[in-house]
Amino acid sequence: MNFLDSKINKIVILVISTLTTGTLGYMVISGYSFVDAIYMTVITVTTVGFGEVKPFTPEEKIFTIFLILTSIVLFGYAVSTFSEYLVSGRLFDYFKHK
Amino acid sequence: MNFLDSKINKIVILVISTLTTGTLGYMVISGYSFVDAIYMTVITVTTVGFGEVKPFTPEEKIFTIFLILTSIVLFGYAVSTFSEYLVSGRLFDYFKHK
Amino acid sequence: MNFLDSKINKIVILVISTLTTGTLGYMVISGYSFVDAIYMTVITVTTVGFGEVKPFTPEEKIFTIFLILTSIVLFGYAVSTFSEYLVSGRLFDYFKHK
Amino acid sequence: MNFLDSKINKIVILVISTLTTGTLGYMVISGYSFVDAIYMTVITVTTVGFGEVKPFTPEEKIFTIFLILTSIVLFGYAVSTFSEYLVSGRLFDYFKHK
Ligand SMILES: [K+]
Ligand SMILES: [K+]
Repeated sequence: MNFLDSKINKIVILVISTLTTGTLGYMVISGYSFVDAIYMTVITVTTVGFGEVKPFTPEEKIFTIFLILTSIVLFGYAVSTFSEYLVSGRLFDYFKHK
Repeated sequence: MNFLDSKINKIVILVISTLTTGTLGYMVISGYSFVDAIYMTVITVTTVGFGEVKPFTPEEKIFTIFLILTSIVLFGYAVSTFSEYLVSGRLFDYFKHK
Repeated sequence: MNFLDSKINKIVILVISTLTTGTLGYMVISGYSFVDAIYMTVITVTTVGFGEVKPFTPEEKIFTIFLILTSIVLFGYAVSTFSEYLVSGRLFDYFKHK
Repeated sequence: MNFLDSKINKIVILVISTLTTGTLGYMVISGYSFVDAIYMTVITVTTVGFGEVKPFTPEEKIFTIFLILTSIVLFGYAVSTFSEYLVSGRLFDYFKHK
């Protein structure tokens, strides 16, 4: 349990780091307002992808590529960990009580 | 089984609540028609994300950020529960009949 | 194995039905060409969601809402079945050979 | 373990092949710059889908349909394999130490 709790803590820290990096990135590289930058980050890392708030320059495209690839690996890790939490926790209980 | 049935009931209620919240939100905050509001909600929470029906104001962006983050946590829970349903139900049967 | 094979056959039939329904729908309701209609269907049911080929009328929005909700339930079922295939097939082999 | 390692190698090779195919495709078919082509490929195969960099011709739509369908099957395989890695590795350890 402690092992999984510390992994979930790591995921929360990684999610917050990704949102912070994306928001700061779009504020610095694109000159977006805070709301525009966090909105752009959230629609990017969640793959909602409504569209660019303003058309991207090549630099913004390269930053966005790295933001997408980073967050997809992170989200894949998050989903695997939560599944693991459910599967190993619940299944373990199943067999213990048999 | 009853434990899982009640969880699936909760998910159905949460999905309907999310769609209702999103639709009401876009009708009140954005002045969208009912069809536009439910269309905007469905393309948002399913991450299809065609684009804003009309360009968003900062208030609409903040509402959309909360709608996305809420529905992603909800959908993650829904997927985990359905997996759990399949895995624990089926696997249990596997070991029972061995 | 036969049980899972017949489920995978059902999924393939359901995926083809969804693509056909979406393509015919956009050709009839929106007057799209075949390529535009299948492109619109594929970017919708896969949640890529680049955007409407032409802005949607309310009728097209309602059709799209049903297409999205149908395909998401279908794809959820498809992912669960493939996972089940892997988990029950492989895990079963694991325990059989122990 | 060697069996799974070789599967993960295959996935990495397939992901790189998909990104290369998409990037070359958009450079040749659409005349996109390298940055535009890799950006278009990344937002397509990850289903972020901000939108076409420039409106697509029918040929580009057909290429994009194949790119999406190929990458979705590939990503489904990747997710299944990583899950399998976690589930069979961890669960196996669980039962071994019982
Ligand atoms: K999208
Ligand atoms: K979009």
